[in-house]
Amino acid sequence: MSYGHWGKMLRVNLTRGSIAVEELDEAWMRKYVGGWGFIAYYMLKEIPAGIDPLSPENLLIYATGPVTGQPVAGGGRHMIGGKSPLTGGFAGSEVGGFFGAELKRAGWDMILFEGASPSPVYLYIKEDDVRLLPADDLWGMETWDVEQKIRETHSDRFIRVSQIGPAGENLALIANVVHDSNRAAGRTGMGALMGSKKLKAVAVRGSRRPPTADPDKLAEMARWFREHYQETGSGIFSTLGTNRMIRVNNGAGGLPTRNFQQGVFEGYEKICAETIMETITVRRDTCYGCPVRCKWVVKVEDEDYPVDPKYGGPEYETTAAMGCLLGIDDLRVIAHANLLCNAYGLDTIGTGMSIAFAMECFEKGLLSLQDTGGIELTFGNGEAAIAMIHKIAKREGLGDLLAQGTRRAARKIGGEAPQFTVEIKGQEVAMHDPRVKYGHGLGIAVSPTGADHMHSAHDSGYQTEAGIKDLKPLGILEPLPWDDLSAQKASMMRQVMMWRIVYNLTGICMFHAWTPQQEAKLIAAATGWNTSVMELWLAGERAYDMARAFNAREGFGAEDDMLPKRLFEPLPQGPVAGKVYSREQFLAARDVFYEMMGWDENGVPTRAKLENLGIGWVADV
Amino acid sequence: MSYGHWGKMLRVNLTRGSIAVEELDEAWMRKYVGGWGFIAYYMLKEIPAGIDPLSPENLLIYATGPVTGQPVAGGGRHMIGGKSPLTGGFAGSEVGGFFGAELKRAGWDMILFEGASPSPVYLYIKEDDVRLLPADDLWGMETWDVEQKIRETHSDRFIRVSQIGPAGENLALIANVVHDSNRAAGRTGMGALMGSKKLKAVAVRGSRRPPTADPDKLAEMARWFREHYQETGSGIFSTLGTNRMIRVNNGAGGLPTRNFQQGVFEGYEKICAETIMETITVRRDTCYGCPVRCKWVVKVEDEDYPVDPKYGGPEYETTAAMGCLLGIDDLRVIAHANLLCNAYGLDTIGTGMSIAFAMECFEKGLLSLQDTGGIELTFGNGEAAIAMIHKIAKREGLGDLLAQGTRRAARKIGGEAPQFTVEIKGQEVAMHDPRVKYGHGLGIAVSPTGADHMHSAHDSGYQTEAGIKDLKPLGILEPLPWDDLSAQKASMMRQVMMWRIVYNLTGICMFHAWTPQQEAKLIAAATGWNTSVMELWLAGERAYDMARAFNAREGFGAEDDMLPKRLFEPLPQGPVAGKVYSREQFLAARDVFYEMMGWDENGVPTRAKLENLGIGWVADV
Repeated sequence: MSYGHWGKMLRVNLTRGSIAVEELDEAWMRKYVGGWGFIAYYMLKEIPAGIDPLSPENLLIYATGPVTGQPVAGGGRHMIGGKSPLTGGFAGSEVGGFFGAELKRAGWDMILFEGASPSPVYLYIKEDDVRLLPADDLWGMETWDVEQKIRETHSDRFIRVSQIGPAGENLALIANVVHDSNRAAGRTGMGALMGSKKLKAVAVRGSRRPPTADPDKLAEMARWFREHYQETGSGIFSTLGTNRMIRVNNGAGGLPTRNFQQGVFEGYEKICAETIMETITVRRDTCYGCPVRCKWVVKVEDEDYPVDPKYGGPEYETTAAMGCLLGIDDLRVIAHANLLCNAYGLDTIGTGMSIAFAMECFEKGLLSLQDTGGIELTFGNGEAAIAMIHKIAKREGLGDLLAQGTRRAARKIGGEAPQFTVEIKGQEVAMHDPRVKYGHGLGIAVSPTGADHMHSAHDSGYQTEAGIKDLKPLGILEPLPWDDLSAQKASMMRQVMMWRIVYNLTGICMFHAWTPQQEAKLIAAATGWNTSVMELWLAGERAYDMARAFNAREGFGAEDDMLPKRLFEPLPQGPVAGKVYSREQFLAARDVFYEMMGWDENGVPTRAKLENLGIGWVADV
Repeated sequence: MSYGHWGKMLRVNLTRGSIAVEELDEAWMRKYVGGWGFIAYYMLKEIPAGIDPLSPENLLIYATGPVTGQPVAGGGRHMIGGKSPLTGGFAGSEVGGFFGAELKRAGWDMILFEGASPSPVYLYIKEDDVRLLPADDLWGMETWDVEQKIRETHSDRFIRVSQIGPAGENLALIANVVHDSNRAAGRTGMGALMGSKKLKAVAVRGSRRPPTADPDKLAEMARWFREHYQETGSGIFSTLGTNRMIRVNNGAGGLPTRNFQQGVFEGYEKICAETIMETITVRRDTCYGCPVRCKWVVKVEDEDYPVDPKYGGPEYETTAAMGCLLGIDDLRVIAHANLLCNAYGLDTIGTGMSIAFAMECFEKGLLSLQDTGGIELTFGNGEAAIAMIHKIAKREGLGDLLAQGTRRAARKIGGEAPQFTVEIKGQEVAMHDPRVKYGHGLGIAVSPTGADHMHSAHDSGYQTEAGIKDLKPLGILEPLPWDDLSAQKASMMRQVMMWRIVYNLTGICMFHAWTPQQEAKLIAAATGWNTSVMELWLAGERAYDMARAFNAREGFGAEDDMLPKRLFEPLPQGPVAGKVYSREQFLAARDVFYEMMGWDENGVPTRAKLENLGIGWVADV
């Protein structure tokens, strides 16, 4: 044990149905910290090279960080990882809510699932009472119902449930893992991985307070945050939630519209944050210990598209992926799509992107009415979109294909279809168009988890002295324009991206505008380590390089760090109309980024780099 | 202006006799911080490639840091730089005392001397009253007398003087710049550079308080240090001074003895700290604002070897270089040699090393009595050593040769002589034998200033958890044995060495055991920058890489980052007798260090690396 961690991992062998407790050493925890770091460590050590991600040899790993479950704003995050069924590479999907904190409060830092159960099970954890229980009756049920059922079974309405829905059971590669019925570890197909193990859910309950080195200091910081978050960057999420980005991105000309064919959506006013707030929002919601309350719960009383508040409300990514991306400006449809994805356990980004891709194929004649089962799969057709979500979750007809993500679907459809996919490493691009933030394109291209907006930086915000003020401690000294793609931008991206990984490692939500120094202090207060921005940054780099090394082992190379063709095409309207994101500039920035990272020309961390991070062993794996 | 700096540089053209004031921009100061950073910047920008270091085209640069002159322990350092006459490469020689703080208190961060005066001059600075004054009458005088004379001339006994002695006037390449008659910017031949400009001295007086962003915080930290320094690492220097290393190094078997032929000195008890303290010490001395008081002033009433306290007392480097290194165990001789070097303005390390080299040449028949002018130049002959110091300063006979350092002398002597030199890039190794701290060998080999113990790390101290406790914020997570030379050791060296440069940049004496976080706070309190260990570490790396880039421009390559043959020979006695420092292991560690640093196989920072540090312009120079 160390402060900030219990030093305890549950190792659950689903094949044998056995559960073991393993101790985690403090020096090891300080080195790998948590989250991605813990996940990448076990993936490299225990997943054999070249396995099918849906085979029992894969691991499913739950990891927390030293701040997860600490009584401070932002400490509600945990990560789920393993070899991604969607990309075939490293996966680590982060999620908020209450589950991670509850797991920590139950006394556990990690759960490592190995093997596969012969029949559906769920893991029940009430502190030291840890059991695998049959889930045959839960199999096939939607997420809200499962959560209720588990709570009833154990007569405890405070149980927190992490689970897959029918989509995960059906091994949809864009299936996610749902928490609290409305929070998702959405990306990289963790739902399919969990489904392949016949693990329906993890239900957890705890009441211990995780060990804190300096509770007074932590309480002081928590108090400071409660009193000041409105003045910090967190304030923007407090007032308008994540959906504020609809207006922002539309204004910049980069609101993903009609499968990234456009960046301006004529109906954006109908789906923007203000409209959502005024029309369908019933209340705000939050995660563990957080005063920001960036989440909005919605309700729609409608015959065609009813929305029950129990499934939360659409975040920006969902609003965009089910709205403008599909040419849909009907909030009822968007909110209902959100509900369906949460009920079925589908990643809203991957699902929206798959449907958008299919719509483009349909409009361009690559998919016929026969292919779609009679659905007029045109942009703007809300009914069609909703129908496709059902089909994807159930893997019916075209939905069976789309459930595998756009890369696989495009290969099957053939012809021009691969030109219409907007994905990297097989994972679809989230609702942030690099054509209005050039550095972000670099960030998602090199991300080991495929196009992933969580581990990149949104360099459109770093154009002014004010924008980079808090980044100076990371060695970023000068602001740069959004359309800069120089080596200096590559450097800026490196510094910020590695720091973003630190949020992940420590279990802090990145919407919390702690400065780097504050974050180091927060971690020091939780753990008692005399840590620094630098030690943490290096830990971020360590985790990132381990993830890259895992991918290299699985055959990934520079060709996989490539933006899709679509993003090199100019946007037709709006402020950046006609402006081209240069492929040559991108490749030059990528290559210099490799060099800055200490990676070889194929994007693989060199032995010297790994040794400099104290993980020479990774080079041997 | 910014806090911590005045934002003002004096540009003195000695050829024209003109003085100009230049403003320094705050963003520039935050990027380059001070010390080496400022010096390397101007060297790269303003010194033409390939010039003779003794030509008027060279610059002589005085630089302070943001903590120089702040009312806090350790803030008494400044740096003197330019193209080294000794190595032909980057030079930045650091020194304590009171001059740096006084320069800051006069309102100046930097002085840049260009050109060369037709006749001897000195620069007089009394705050904004800055004048070049004739120094014809001072030329040829010894340092104490010059200091007195200048003080008398201006009727101000608090004037602080930075000056060359006769050795610098005579362009001895191992001449130093003396401060307060007993502190030296010793290495890299800055005395010769100053002499070539006919600049005898810089005399400064000021009474302004340098701007401090948070005086209360700084005062609080200064108070904390005064009350706690004994408990920190600084305590060891407080009780026994630097001479404690005589016993420590002898015990380890690495006390440089008889020109590094041995590592154990049979007479070490006669010259160790305790003996110095009990026999010849009259009082302790200190630098600006420092409660540690690591310096001891000595006095010897002796006909042959009189020592006046006005010239201070021998530090460890001097005691070793004039003692065991020459086989001398007579403290009178050592203290008198120290006095002579301070009076003449000679680097005690370079001087001792040159004499030791000559003694070995003499004993091995490469120098005859005729060569030495009749001096029996054998190890242990104190009289001979003293005689040689006079000759070196005056450049008489063999002294003329030795004044140029051992590399040049060995080439002239020929035969086996180059085998007996213990230097890197033409600068002699200080009194720390890498054979008892393997990582240190790497550090001095790659140092841009030649063998320089100031910018390496003494990895013999990092063998235990306690030894690395404060280094964890730098990403050093595990202790390593002194004889480890793995890639992991190279990594440890990189992290510590770059941090050591931060001391230099900020003007903090490295004997002050501030933790990295404390140092970041100290700098934040001085400057108001929301800085971090990481930003500072990167600034250290920036300065280091600029110095390396300067050397690359001047033709330095991997072959110059080599330890001398002597250090690959086993030591004959003591705890490490017979153990070989492996050349192969050294080269492997050096190559991996290059890679970790982002240098190419020739040791030159890559463009990507420089861009990552925000100094892409250096690649163009």
